[in-house]
Amino acid sequence: MKALYAQSGGVTSVINASAYGVIDEARRNGLEIYVGINGVTGVLKEKFLDATELDIEFLRYTPAGAFGSCRKKLKSESDIEKLFEIFRKNDIRYFFYNGGNDSMDTAWRLQMEAQKRGYELKVVGVPKTIDNDLPHTDHCPGYGSAAKYIAIAMMEAALDLRSMYVDSTQVFVMEIMGRHAGWLAAAAALGWVNGIGADIVLLPEEPFNKDEFIAAVDNVVSKKGHCAIAVAEGLKYPDGFFVSDMGFTDSFGNRQLGGVGFTIAGMVRSELGLKTHVAIPDYLQRSGRHIASATDVQEAEMCGRMAVRYALEDNYGVMVTMERISDDPYEIRYSSVPLNLVAEQTKMLPKDYFDKFTVTEKFFRYALPLIQGEFYPPFKNGLPDYKLLDLK
Amino acid sequence: MKALYAQSGGVTSVINASAYGVIDEARRNGLEIYVGINGVTGVLKEKFLDATELDIEFLRYTPAGAFGSCRKKLKSESDIEKLFEIFRKNDIRYFFYNGGNDSMDTAWRLQMEAQKRGYELKVVGVPKTIDNDLPHTDHCPGYGSAAKYIAIAMMEAALDLRSMYVDSTQVFVMEIMGRHAGWLAAAAALGWVNGIGADIVLLPEEPFNKDEFIAAVDNVVSKKGHCAIAVAEGLKYPDGFFVSDMGFTDSFGNRQLGGVGFTIAGMVRSELGLKTHVAIPDYLQRSGRHIASATDVQEAEMCGRMAVRYALEDNYGVMVTMERISDDPYEIRYSSVPLNLVAEQTKMLPKDYFDKFTVTEKFFRYALPLIQGEFYPPFKNGLPDYKLLDLK
Repeated sequence: MKALYAQSGGVTSVINASAYGVIDEARRNGLEIYVGINGVTGVLKEKFLDATELDIEFLRYTPAGAFGSCRKKLKSESDIEKLFEIFRKNDIRYFFYNGGNDSMDTAWRLQMEAQKRGYELKVVGVPKTIDNDLPHTDHCPGYGSAAKYIAIAMMEAALDLRSMYVDSTQVFVMEIMGRHAGWLAAAAALGWVNGIGADIVLLPEEPFNKDEFIAAVDNVVSKKGHCAIAVAEGLKYPDGFFVSDMGFTDSFGNRQLGGVGFTIAGMVRSELGLKTHVAIPDYLQRSGRHIASATDVQEAEMCGRMAVRYALEDNYGVMVTMERISDDPYEIRYSSVPLNLVAEQTKMLPKDYFDKFTVTEKFFRYALPLIQGEFYPPFKNGLPDYKLLDLK
Repeated sequence: MKALYAQSGGVTSVINASAYGVIDEARRNGLEIYVGINGVTGVLKEKFLDATELDIEFLRYTPAGAFGSCRKKLKSESDIEKLFEIFRKNDIRYFFYNGGNDSMDTAWRLQMEAQKRGYELKVVGVPKTIDNDLPHTDHCPGYGSAAKYIAIAMMEAALDLRSMYVDSTQVFVMEIMGRHAGWLAAAAALGWVNGIGADIVLLPEEPFNKDEFIAAVDNVVSKKGHCAIAVAEGLKYPDGFFVSDMGFTDSFGNRQLGGVGFTIAGMVRSELGLKTHVAIPDYLQRSGRHIASATDVQEAEMCGRMAVRYALEDNYGVMVTMERISDDPYEIRYSSVPLNLVAEQTKMLPKDYFDKFTVTEKFFRYALPLIQGEFYPPFKNGLPDYKLLDLK
């Protein structure tokens, strides 16, 4: 009787802490724990790694998916058939899937299929997404660290801008991940708690009005001489059209995508004649383990442990959730929600967390506890001593 | 009799550590130390800050120019006339200018003009540039921290890529600062010392050949399935034309600049049909104080102190330099070089530090000592407790 753990979807800087939690808790409870390489993609090829004796300490501080992730959605009947053949052959009776919305859909699908086939399988989802957009949980492991990364990056860039604006760049734009929800972009304002942060935050939840935006930048610049802007890649016009569609193709004929930062900066340059700079942290924001939130690392590990405990208590077909009991002092309680209530749902930033181009006090109360504490990785040769498994 | 310190040019995460060194050393030696706001731009407006009693502890850990920087070049006779009027009026007899190539030109100009006018002024330059391209010094304060930032960012992004390549992104491109020299882009390979880094490094020193580049990417991807690329913004074709010129204007009619990362990614997409992601850390790499090199912070401070000591020893009209005595154990000695030998010169990456798309063992021996040690800023509310002066 084996337990299987696998990672899925876009990675985070603390997903491996959840792996650590699952593996350690499984071993403490006498489960034979295996890991699928590259999520269900590897499971379909029987690519397993026996983790019963694996040295797992490195999982607590190494970012990204140590066991490989995947984007695969389980759609075809033959894939599902194949998967259950493999489960049966290996006597896999527990499946812990660590991912976001799509992965919870896969987990749910497998739980249903197991029931249909009369195959005893206990599936528990471990939440993970920097996007923080899973419903029925206060927040998601991975978000706190990405939010901390973004808040610090914006503080440092804003200090840079403040030094240079007199006769160089006046407007700095940082393009932040988040195609659907603005949780991450909003984090660019958190630095204000220490005196410096994004002056303007452009969220997918707030339809973009160019005239109002330009007026807002003009207003900030006329007051202090410079303006730091955070823009979510999913920023949309009122008609739902993405602002990131730059309206042209590059020299190789490819449609220019993902350039919302450049689009926004271009508007500022042409409308206000100001000098601009654009940063796109891209993967850096989701794998920036060197500045992870200690709270996030601990919670990611605990979500992994809870998944195992729930399965052993016969609470399965669920995803682990966190319920907030109190903001200050910060306190959460672990709980669970049926997978089908999470699958393919998206939690947007609540309306009272933002106000036009800024975030509200309510957002600060929500987000600040999630970025508390530093848990630095060990260093060797002046660089983090991250470890790699051979996944071939 | 006063001493004046000012910051100039693009900032770094440790330029304030040099300010700390200058101010503290000046005070220890009984000098009345003033700081010019926004470099010579502020000095021309008599915008001074009396630093004789200033609490300067925050300068050791706050990035960017705490006193404001500028891009101004002293060209006009009337500006120079004005400056000496102000110097005379305030009895300024020492001038410490903290900057890069252009700033050392300004410092040299002022030293010459003082001599011409029979005005007793001792000018000493304090080196600073993340570009690391000042001649006659082994390296420049600011470089070690930016190099450390870039090495870590590339390690983390490469781990991310390695997790995702099976059915998502195969090629990651990071666009790195450096219009003339490839010192910073080369740092993206340093992570290999701990097992992961950039597979391909594109430097301004190596004329870009698209066919060879595409073949190199194809080779890496066919071997391991994914490829992490670092590209310097100053990458050029053999005819000197910048690769970053994307060959089109944006929807607002502005020429699209600084997009070398997107250009390179576009080539990979269209020639090899691989999925790509692009990161542009921009200001984040030069103001990323949260992950500064302790060696760099200490040396930046010491360069500031040495500037004061040299001036007091009547060794002026010079810039502070660092001479390397040994790589292992790492040892340097402080020295000085006449300002006119530094002004407007650029030190390129030596030919034996790189080899086509990679860096050599020699570069590792050179760069690794510069990124050693961590000197974290203090944290408050989960974020660095950076301090801001009111510069108005």
